[in-house]
Amino acid sequence: MNSFGHMFRVSIFGESHGIQIGVVIDGCPPGIALTEDDLKEDFARRRAGGRGTTPRVEPDIPSIVSGVFQGKTTGAPLTIVFENTNIKSGDYSNLWDQPRPGHADYTAQQKYSGYNDPRGGGHFSGRITLGIVAAGVVAKKILGSVSVTATLIEAGGSKDIAAAVEAAIEAKDSIGGLIECRCTNMPVGLGEPFFDSAEALIAHMVFAVPATRGIEFGSGFASASMKGSEHNDCITDEEGKTATNNASGINGGITNGNDIVFRVPIKPTSSIGLPQDTYNFKEKSVSTLLIEGRHDVCIAIRIPVVIECATAIVLADLMLRERRG
Amino acid sequence: MNSFGHMFRVSIFGESHGIQIGVVIDGCPPGIALTEDDLKEDFARRRAGGRGTTPRVEPDIPSIVSGVFQGKTTGAPLTIVFENTNIKSGDYSNLWDQPRPGHADYTAQQKYSGYNDPRGGGHFSGRITLGIVAAGVVAKKILGSVSVTATLIEAGGSKDIAAAVEAAIEAKDSIGGLIECRCTNMPVGLGEPFFDSAEALIAHMVFAVPATRGIEFGSGFASASMKGSEHNDCITDEEGKTATNNASGINGGITNGNDIVFRVPIKPTSSIGLPQDTYNFKEKSVSTLLIEGRHDVCIAIRIPVVIECATAIVLADLMLRERRG
Amino acid sequence: MNSFGHMFRVSIFGESHGIQIGVVIDGCPPGIALTEDDLKEDFARRRAGGRGTTPRVEPDIPSIVSGVFQGKTTGAPLTIVFENTNIKSGDYSNLWDQPRPGHADYTAQQKYSGYNDPRGGGHFSGRITLGIVAAGVVAKKILGSVSVTATLIEAGGSKDIAAAVEAAIEAKDSIGGLIECRCTNMPVGLGEPFFDSAEALIAHMVFAVPATRGIEFGSGFASASMKGSEHNDCITDEEGKTATNNASGINGGITNGNDIVFRVPIKPTSSIGLPQDTYNFKEKSVSTLLIEGRHDVCIAIRIPVVIECATAIVLADLMLRERRG
Amino acid sequence: MNSFGHMFRVSIFGESHGIQIGVVIDGCPPGIALTEDDLKEDFARRRAGGRGTTPRVEPDIPSIVSGVFQGKTTGAPLTIVFENTNIKSGDYSNLWDQPRPGHADYTAQQKYSGYNDPRGGGHFSGRITLGIVAAGVVAKKILGSVSVTATLIEAGGSKDIAAAVEAAIEAKDSIGGLIECRCTNMPVGLGEPFFDSAEALIAHMVFAVPATRGIEFGSGFASASMKGSEHNDCITDEEGKTATNNASGINGGITNGNDIVFRVPIKPTSSIGLPQDTYNFKEKSVSTLLIEGRHDVCIAIRIPVVIECATAIVLADLMLRERRG
Repeated sequence: MNSFGHMFRVSIFGESHGIQIGVVIDGCPPGIALTEDDLKEDFARRRAGGRGTTPRVEPDIPSIVSGVFQGKTTGAPLTIVFENTNIKSGDYSNLWDQPRPGHADYTAQQKYSGYNDPRGGGHFSGRITLGIVAAGVVAKKILGSVSVTATLIEAGGSKDIAAAVEAAIEAKDSIGGLIECRCTNMPVGLGEPFFDSAEALIAHMVFAVPATRGIEFGSGFASASMKGSEHNDCITDEEGKTATNNASGINGGITNGNDIVFRVPIKPTSSIGLPQDTYNFKEKSVSTLLIEGRHDVCIAIRIPVVIECATAIVLADLMLRERRG
Repeated sequence: MNSFGHMFRVSIFGESHGIQIGVVIDGCPPGIALTEDDLKEDFARRRAGGRGTTPRVEPDIPSIVSGVFQGKTTGAPLTIVFENTNIKSGDYSNLWDQPRPGHADYTAQQKYSGYNDPRGGGHFSGRITLGIVAAGVVAKKILGSVSVTATLIEAGGSKDIAAAVEAAIEAKDSIGGLIECRCTNMPVGLGEPFFDSAEALIAHMVFAVPATRGIEFGSGFASASMKGSEHNDCITDEEGKTATNNASGINGGITNGNDIVFRVPIKPTSSIGLPQDTYNFKEKSVSTLLIEGRHDVCIAIRIPVVIECATAIVLADLMLRERRG
Repeated sequence: MNSFGHMFRVSIFGESHGIQIGVVIDGCPPGIALTEDDLKEDFARRRAGGRGTTPRVEPDIPSIVSGVFQGKTTGAPLTIVFENTNIKSGDYSNLWDQPRPGHADYTAQQKYSGYNDPRGGGHFSGRITLGIVAAGVVAKKILGSVSVTATLIEAGGSKDIAAAVEAAIEAKDSIGGLIECRCTNMPVGLGEPFFDSAEALIAHMVFAVPATRGIEFGSGFASASMKGSEHNDCITDEEGKTATNNASGINGGITNGNDIVFRVPIKPTSSIGLPQDTYNFKEKSVSTLLIEGRHDVCIAIRIPVVIECATAIVLADLMLRERRG
Repeated sequence: MNSFGHMFRVSIFGESHGIQIGVVIDGCPPGIALTEDDLKEDFARRRAGGRGTTPRVEPDIPSIVSGVFQGKTTGAPLTIVFENTNIKSGDYSNLWDQPRPGHADYTAQQKYSGYNDPRGGGHFSGRITLGIVAAGVVAKKILGSVSVTATLIEAGGSKDIAAAVEAAIEAKDSIGGLIECRCTNMPVGLGEPFFDSAEALIAHMVFAVPATRGIEFGSGFASASMKGSEHNDCITDEEGKTATNNASGINGGITNGNDIVFRVPIKPTSSIGLPQDTYNFKEKSVSTLLIEGRHDVCIAIRIPVVIECATAIVLADLMLRERRG
């Protein structure tokens, strides 16, 4: 279903070219100061505009329509919506004939028996992640001293992100990227053994963000080649701090007070300026497809803030569960 | 909470040295043939016994105590339990004084205010995954022609797994491993956009398995260095089959009919024969800890069947959701 | 939390005097024809206007902002919103000083530490049930030949509802009422034993409607005085039809194909024109309160359609669960 | 699904004549003293044995198999099981031919395509409520000073319960009864507006108990005939205490600190000693059925403790949700 969270539950809705997209947050504690201005900074980080992002910039003006009274959350469901302006009616019939490679055109048609809204990707559009960012801004206010920061550390396999982006623009191609996220000042005791382990919930949420292809915590894939004597994080003080942090601050699914650190690869944008061969269902054969318009050359540039907000949502949920004791 | 699944919901319970461990499966369709014998094969794969696994072998004799009548599932909650035999009362006070590195000793104490059962890891024991395997055996019967297979493809960084294990035994150390899981004959249309994407649910479940450190689907971490023109999987026929499978059979969170392929790194076993320095809470200083007894040198050997069963549970749940249409 | 349903999940949000109220429906199947016009009839039934209802009539103009494309549901979250027009800023400080008897003024203040929106009842307003009605209209389209009809059968203890209302208007008082709901053409097999029994889910949903004070199915409270030989419904044909219907079409939590029939008492409107004594927290003593303005004399007149829609939501959810087999 | 609760989640499993029945409680806080002996008193209240109850008395010996260590809950899933002793294999084919009126024989067959366990009612047996009682005993320990008490106040329409029972025994018939449940020392602030209102959750849980036919809170069905000036409960002090309690301690779905009082009618036991006419699917006509064996003449005698425990489960869940703040 299209919601996530146990005590801080986030539901998102909307389509790329629909009337309104938005987010409903259920379980937000009362008394948190919140205005539309609080969303500006993270929205700006997510927005297109720089080199390598699509030149189509949407204003992303949020409207808090329920759950806030006199500038503070009320405890009732908190709803933030965004009007979609400048929606152009286009001809999308070609998406049915020749689904774009890497996109959800084909799977959406199949799953929804052809009733899905195809305009601009419909409900599958990355634009719907605006709701995750909005909820994450609220979640961060619940986290207190806990800090969550995600950054793009590589693009196209290179640490010189700007150069990689320029090369991809030049080549009319797209490139992927690698994001690292770090949570600091973590409390001990968040998460549950097995199904609701802190890693399980973070991973679940991270894969809700389109274009993610993996996740590794701490030692991650390198751990497969390590020895126990190298990998074990020896505790060094009464607070549970460890000399190394291969466990990424989590043992047995429960946070141990050290930083949570994880990395997420982002695939290259599926829409590229180069012609591609793919199946044409009308012609019943493979033929060349050229996707018109301008696109994000490196969508990974815009995703760190989404990963950050997605992670904040998980941590806020876990903190609200835990405060029950 | 300690359950997972929307239509096929699995709840596990028990402690390593408790009276009974088990699994309750809610939502299992009626009419599926099931006997205790059906569990034998996957239990044998999970069980210790070979080189590199602990010499302490438990019999793992399952008892189906509810939900089956005359050899068929009834549609009522299906419960499978395991008695813990040969439980030795030991002195576990040292775990409180000096929590073992890499284990959940410290986090469990903190989270549960010292009331957790410490014997053999208590509820955090890998032994509790027996319930996941049992549920997975049932899940596989729901999958029809879909096949899920997980294998250990590396241990200690080497493809010669036997040699790597021998070296680790010799060194009184432990080693990690890399598991690959492949789901074939997949239907189109499983999974939802965003929060319940097929990747999100599989990743959630995989991280419920202790010792997992990451997951990557299809192109995975390599995608961060790829170009869109390389990464896009071009559709080649009416069934949606693709020339490459970087997307791991999933677009927009929804299966596209191609194989789901993912890899999971398993950390080296935390219990090793070598002495380790770590904090002693009684002495209020770091001191050397030697963990007695014999352990799995490479727990990764026993985990493929658990990953396989965990994945089958997710796919069965998604299939039962989808048949609603 | 503020959502209900397993496969057809309804979340409502908004405040009486907020910017927007609405409903998000997750799990609605694709391909259902839906326009704003479809909501008109049930909205009209819920709306004030007749004798005994408040003279303040809101337009209740719905806007479908997501989940519908070209007049059909898409399978993505379906969101219907209502703008609150003509919101007057008032002075609500008196609600804090002297909470109105029968209203949620006191409990909301306590639960939300005084951060709740008090204007017009805030999130506790009956106006929020518009979302339930909207979702019910959609649910009815899923029910196929199943029909759900709720009617007011008594008001103020009298079957002459009009006369009872006139007397209450005259007396500046309010009166309660009794609603009967009947579901016909029911399929066999909806509902689960125990926690998700058909009665349990319907009762849950009915008590989500403000002003309900009870529910009885079939023989209801009379069954406490009956004998088994009178109460048992003897099956009379192969379709499971019964000679009597004391069980209200449900055995063991599961529908048996006969009509579901239940009755719901609605309390008299809490806001009345007469002065009332109640505690004044500012003066720290009981003092007289006079509630200004005009109110529904018999809110029960407006509630049948809400009960009907609430019931349709439950049945649609159960039908979508069941079609999984 | 077969579980209930958000923070204190109860799952029940088992069949009347199966190997084991039981309950898994997820979310039980650590550190609560619990032994099998604690269950004795409520089990004795539920057990048959007195006049009007079935002469078949089961020992109901509980075994706590997980979640308790050294006499205290650990915070891990708490599992309590009961072995079914003295199970006699019988011939149940007649249940398929001629389903008993008032029982779930017909609906279970239809829903589960004939795979349901028919022995002694299978999963539909009232015996499965043992798990609810066990969970309720644990829940009561979480409630602190809150007290929940349910009593049978009428049987067969008479306050002289013993005489009514004797008459029914004489007549080889069965009789219903009326239960009243009262929760005292209630805190303010439990429950949510709309879907998770305190009434909604209690009603949901009460209808999970077999044989319940209705529920009314406070003024209940009488409220339909009342005036607002009579019905409104005027607050009389700073603690929110009210002069009357028509609201049953709940306003807007949220507890107001006054007692919760509700009544539940219990239908007469379906199995009676008299012959009954009902449909015979083998003979394809209505014929007379005589149910062999001895039965509860008034099952309502045994249900108060189940209602009490069911209510305690809801209140414990709501209290654990609320402590999050």
